[in-house]
Amino acid sequence: MGRRHGPLPTTEELRIWRDFIETTERLRSHLASRLQSDSALSPGDYAVLLALHEAEGHRLRSSELAAAIGWERSRLSHHLGRMERRGLIRRVECATDNRGAEAVLTDDGAQAFRRATLPHLGAVREMFVDTLTPEQLAAAGEIAQALRVRLDAASGPS
Amino acid sequence: MGRRHGPLPTTEELRIWRDFIETTERLRSHLASRLQSDSALSPGDYAVLLALHEAEGHRLRSSELAAAIGWERSRLSHHLGRMERRGLIRRVECATDNRGAEAVLTDDGAQAFRRATLPHLGAVREMFVDTLTPEQLAAAGEIAQALRVRLDAASGPS
Repeated sequence: MGRRHGPLPTTEELRIWRDFIETTERLRSHLASRLQSDSALSPGDYAVLLALHEAEGHRLRSSELAAAIGWERSRLSHHLGRMERRGLIRRVECATDNRGAEAVLTDDGAQAFRRATLPHLGAVREMFVDTLTPEQLAAAGEIAQALRVRLDAASGPS
Repeated sequence: MGRRHGPLPTTEELRIWRDFIETTERLRSHLASRLQSDSALSPGDYAVLLALHEAEGHRLRSSELAAAIGWERSRLSHHLGRMERRGLIRRVECATDNRGAEAVLTDDGAQAFRRATLPHLGAVREMFVDTLTPEQLAAAGEIAQALRVRLDAASGPS
């Protein structure tokens, strides 16, 4: 309402946009299917296991975990409940602290993460890294960086 | 199971991968939020309206529409049911033809599409086209092309 619009993208710019956004969505979906069939994990499961694996003591506050994987707290909370029932993580309440429960990687979770990582990273190499030339890979990094700076500016300080 | 894995991606390759896939997901989500708040349409609604708008006679078979927007038939069928109840499209059964019903853009759907397009394309320009240098935009097109060829090869002939 009242937002002004500059000139619209050209046909060629829109073609690139559609190609880019549709293909990255296909790639994400392809890798999610392979992760599920290879390792019975969703991309969300893997992101949580990865963040806990990389954290000191294999544990993180819910707030830290949410920031690490870029999810809303409420979505993460439901997801962690399901992962806890599958034995992949434990949640430890901390009554003296208002930053939320800690999520802790279990032995089963660590094993699931280790087993999933080799085929998952192999798929990333096959479908992304080895598909691009070194110049294209570097450009993909620069494009991601430019887009992220713009998104950060649009969402304001957080 | 038995699939062989080559060398794993390097730390730098994985950093680019994570940046790339996370940032494109943030971009998709950002544009979806703006489309919803500007025009009360989901990205799926917009994709259907766009495909019908571009089609001859503003109508497509379900099978053609599914191919145009890259969805499974069952997902599309549920989605079209919701769009029909909102008056954005009509579905016309065709008893002599087994390619499924035709979806037809209604006047309300055409109006919703026209109203949504200016702010949506403005957002694409702002967040994607104008965010990248001309060289980065061209590289984004080449990257999408390379990834699509690889995905087509992985999913086999279809």
